[in-house]
Amino acid sequence: MTFKRLLFGRPLKSSEVDAEKMPIWKALPILSSDALSSVAYGTEMILLELATVGAFAFSFSLPIAIAIILLISILIVSYRQVIDAYPQGGGAYMVAKENLSMMWGRLAGVSLLIDYTLTVAVSISAGVLAITSAFPAGLPYIVPIGIIFIWFMVWMNLRGTSESGNVFALPTYLFIVCMLILVGKGLFDWLTNNVQAEHHVSIPTAIPSGLTWFVLLKAFSSGCSAVTGVEAISNAVPNFRDPAQRSAKRTMLTLGVLLAVIFGGVTILSQAYDIHPDSTGTKTVLSMVAEDAFGRGVIYYIIQIATMMILTLAANTSFNGFPILASIMAQDNNMPRMFSNRGDRLAFNHGIITLGVLASILLIVFGGRTESLIPLYAIGVFLSFTMAQVGLVIKWCKEKSQGWKRKAIINGIGALVTFFVVIIFSLTKFEEGAWIVVFITPILLWVITKINKHYKNVAKQLNVDLAVPIPTTDTVIIIPVAGIHKVVVSTIGYAKALTPNVVAFYVAFSPEAAKEMEDKWAQWNPGVRLVVVVSRYRTVIKPLIEFIGRIEYHLGEKKRVTVLLPEFFTSKWWHRLLHNQSAFRIRATLFARKDVVVATVPFRLND
Amino acid sequence: MTFKRLLFGRPLKSSEVDAEKMPIWKALPILSSDALSSVAYGTEMILLELATVGAFAFSFSLPIAIAIILLISILIVSYRQVIDAYPQGGGAYMVAKENLSMMWGRLAGVSLLIDYTLTVAVSISAGVLAITSAFPAGLPYIVPIGIIFIWFMVWMNLRGTSESGNVFALPTYLFIVCMLILVGKGLFDWLTNNVQAEHHVSIPTAIPSGLTWFVLLKAFSSGCSAVTGVEAISNAVPNFRDPAQRSAKRTMLTLGVLLAVIFGGVTILSQAYDIHPDSTGTKTVLSMVAEDAFGRGVIYYIIQIATMMILTLAANTSFNGFPILASIMAQDNNMPRMFSNRGDRLAFNHGIITLGVLASILLIVFGGRTESLIPLYAIGVFLSFTMAQVGLVIKWCKEKSQGWKRKAIINGIGALVTFFVVIIFSLTKFEEGAWIVVFITPILLWVITKINKHYKNVAKQLNVDLAVPIPTTDTVIIIPVAGIHKVVVSTIGYAKALTPNVVAFYVAFSPEAAKEMEDKWAQWNPGVRLVVVVSRYRTVIKPLIEFIGRIEYHLGEKKRVTVLLPEFFTSKWWHRLLHNQSAFRIRATLFARKDVVVATVPFRLND
Repeated sequence: MTFKRLLFGRPLKSSEVDAEKMPIWKALPILSSDALSSVAYGTEMILLELATVGAFAFSFSLPIAIAIILLISILIVSYRQVIDAYPQGGGAYMVAKENLSMMWGRLAGVSLLIDYTLTVAVSISAGVLAITSAFPAGLPYIVPIGIIFIWFMVWMNLRGTSESGNVFALPTYLFIVCMLILVGKGLFDWLTNNVQAEHHVSIPTAIPSGLTWFVLLKAFSSGCSAVTGVEAISNAVPNFRDPAQRSAKRTMLTLGVLLAVIFGGVTILSQAYDIHPDSTGTKTVLSMVAEDAFGRGVIYYIIQIATMMILTLAANTSFNGFPILASIMAQDNNMPRMFSNRGDRLAFNHGIITLGVLASILLIVFGGRTESLIPLYAIGVFLSFTMAQVGLVIKWCKEKSQGWKRKAIINGIGALVTFFVVIIFSLTKFEEGAWIVVFITPILLWVITKINKHYKNVAKQLNVDLAVPIPTTDTVIIIPVAGIHKVVVSTIGYAKALTPNVVAFYVAFSPEAAKEMEDKWAQWNPGVRLVVVVSRYRTVIKPLIEFIGRIEYHLGEKKRVTVLLPEFFTSKWWHRLLHNQSAFRIRATLFARKDVVVATVPFRLND
Repeated sequence: MTFKRLLFGRPLKSSEVDAEKMPIWKALPILSSDALSSVAYGTEMILLELATVGAFAFSFSLPIAIAIILLISILIVSYRQVIDAYPQGGGAYMVAKENLSMMWGRLAGVSLLIDYTLTVAVSISAGVLAITSAFPAGLPYIVPIGIIFIWFMVWMNLRGTSESGNVFALPTYLFIVCMLILVGKGLFDWLTNNVQAEHHVSIPTAIPSGLTWFVLLKAFSSGCSAVTGVEAISNAVPNFRDPAQRSAKRTMLTLGVLLAVIFGGVTILSQAYDIHPDSTGTKTVLSMVAEDAFGRGVIYYIIQIATMMILTLAANTSFNGFPILASIMAQDNNMPRMFSNRGDRLAFNHGIITLGVLASILLIVFGGRTESLIPLYAIGVFLSFTMAQVGLVIKWCKEKSQGWKRKAIINGIGALVTFFVVIIFSLTKFEEGAWIVVFITPILLWVITKINKHYKNVAKQLNVDLAVPIPTTDTVIIIPVAGIHKVVVSTIGYAKALTPNVVAFYVAFSPEAAKEMEDKWAQWNPGVRLVVVVSRYRTVIKPLIEFIGRIEYHLGEKKRVTVLLPEFFTSKWWHRLLHNQSAFRIRATLFARKDVVVATVPFRLND
């Protein structure tokens, strides 16, 4: 108990849930590190796709980045509308459930849960790789180090949201500041023509031969990996301090602006410095940009460290998003009910631990290789984007509130674009791993539907008509005895006070033992009938179950059998090992096989 | 269930225990492989000690071997007397317990249990080493291979004594035949002066300078490792087919003759062939004798394989001896009671599995190195020899039956000699590992004494005066409810039939929920009072325990509290995961902390 306290802190009262809620300055780093960290590889993904046809195509990175920033803008606007419409959180799940159907909602929920899990695995892998790049001695231990990271995060989050916020806020701000300085310095140098390796930055007007629309679209969809994570804020509205809705919308806007500035800036600078992506993966585009801007000085190293830290923290976004989404789905009976229980520290313990386990499995199965995980990554999130926006379009068309046409058009465009990304992603990355997601999503959907059906079924079975009077059921008490001793005496005394229908049951392992017990019982004469059975297989349970069957047959429907088990409880735990655990085994077997009431009459041994 | 059947065979009736008993031809290989396998290294141990002063001392191996054969004779005679006096088995434990005191009996028992465990570890290590010598590719896997061997034996023995006998009889007979052929051929060659490397075999008449009595005694005590295992037969008398006593004595005699012939013969041949022991451990003395007698032909390889097999089988002796001794000690309350229970196949499962676990631990801790285990090995068995014989001396002196003086003298000499071996062993091998046994034996003795005291204490607490009438105890039934549904209805109906003192108990997580439940209950009005408590920490258990405390305070000594837990049982196992296991947790907590009757009213869900 004390150890648990030390590890997780004192239990919190339900009323303290509000104190755990976050102001904007805490919510921004906690909920945005996933989206912001994508900047670390967004530009690189675009350039790598374009590099497949040749360096001449690099000039197309700017229009593609502009398109993605446009997409980000649409998403931010759209998700601010989600926050307005669904302040209780739930994001895409909520929107799809209410405007499309429960089944579409489940699909959105499953997609998001898969994506949260992947975010942890991808970000932790990338983060660990950043460390092991600095310290190659750690290379053989990528998986164990990653698992330590994951469970450190599990621990932090089990302690509660607010506390983990304090720890995680600083590195995100460090990364933001670094990026803003980098982009600011770089653009200033470029505008004042003070760039070392001068290069023409322009928007191309025609597609040259050798470059196809397909390559451009592939580059665009690859760059979209920089967009993942923006939905986290809309799912976590209930985690904001009041006024939650307004705070969430502000945080969303701030994130959008930061994303656009940093992502756009880095892309422009990559052209200004004429950077070619390194396909061997030893040097990132971001690090080359930083090196060109500042040289290999202190600032360069700070940027590298901040990048590594935010990649690791990106995983933490999921540790906020996953448990909340799971709890909302559990309230709709679309997840096991325990996901909606808050633990001692008010965190959704089951969701946090489940995410830790799943991410650890992913990390082990994929050996901590980021590049193997990436193709699985963005499908789920873009699928949920699509559903949320389709849902909103339907909502606007139904409600026809002020400005509904403009809203519906924005969301409609968003839905089309994000759905387009899903298709491109699925097609171009199917063989590289996207098939796993395509395969697992319907299975999970089926499981969740079964869970929901089970809960509905149970509710129906438990439903009771309050007007019907309660029927009382008489009972026959069976007391299995192992001999005549004090526990049997107190058990019989207890049973006789409840009902006159009491029978003791003894299993003898030989006819002699049976005779002996019968004689002793007759001599004692406790006023309770004794039934003795000889078991040739040295087992008590089988004859007992047969005996219960016989009694039940005679009682018929209206009466119930109660088995009263005298059980020792020893004062020292190791003393338990010295006694046959027959009461324990009989109880377990009866629970599994007979419809009888099982009562344990405890007898505490002093030593 | 079917899988268990396939693995272990059908359950056996208690009356089939006699069919499991062994005739002599089966008992000999099962109970003697430990003693016989010692021949494989007995002569070598003597020669290795003598080699420390020089090859000139080798001629003393013959008188030492004669002394050991004398010791074997004394032990055989003595243990035939044990079988006569104690046909129910138990060997040294029984003799020491009855003639000295319970404490000495426990010491003998503990010593033997330790030695059985060591026998498994030593024999398996040596056996595996024989295999890996032939196939060096297995060298890195000595420990895993050894553990597979151990658990194969556990499995065989769990199937039952007789069946394991059939499997294990053949290799022992193969070894015996091989050894007899080897000794016969060798002695014939020697007597007909047909020895390749001619050497003078003689008994020296004086101790030359450079050789001390201490070295001779050390060599003698090392050679005594060949004597370990002879007690197994006297401990296993109940396992013999009737007439058990006479069969056991005959088996004992056969073993003694075989030991003397093979051990004596090999020692004579080692001198005739002028064999020098190989201190690097790559070639055994026995293999050199066999090579000199037959050359490196088929017979040589058969002898090597037979040696390897009997070393492995030696471990099986312990799998017969350990569980039987443990069960006898358990009947005296000197071991946890479960060791006296026979399993489905009539074997003492707990003893077999415990031995498997302990031997596996030894194998892992000592890395499967035989030479590290040997110094721990013989102390226990010789200590038990000593106690058995001291016990018999006292018995003869008390009873003064026919020929008691002769018997007492034989046992007295045996006691002195074996005690002498214990002292020499402890002194010369203390630093090499004997200290572990010297350290662990008193600890185990203390634990066993505590176990015995606990059982006596429990018996005293449970003892009941049959003349005193049974006091009936009234009860108050508390029903924790989570809402109003069908299970609660049937539970209340059940409780009301037993007693009018029924109270329902509801824990609300907010004041609003409390109010709502109270209103609903009042509307329903089931004729049972409802107590509602608001928990701010989202836990049901703590308020329930406090409530029970309050009720108990009002009831006083004469009444008892019963907690009636409505519990769901789902038809599919995975559905259990979908329900909070609160009934399970409440039950466990109440068992641990409150002296109340806990009854479970099952409600079976259909889907």
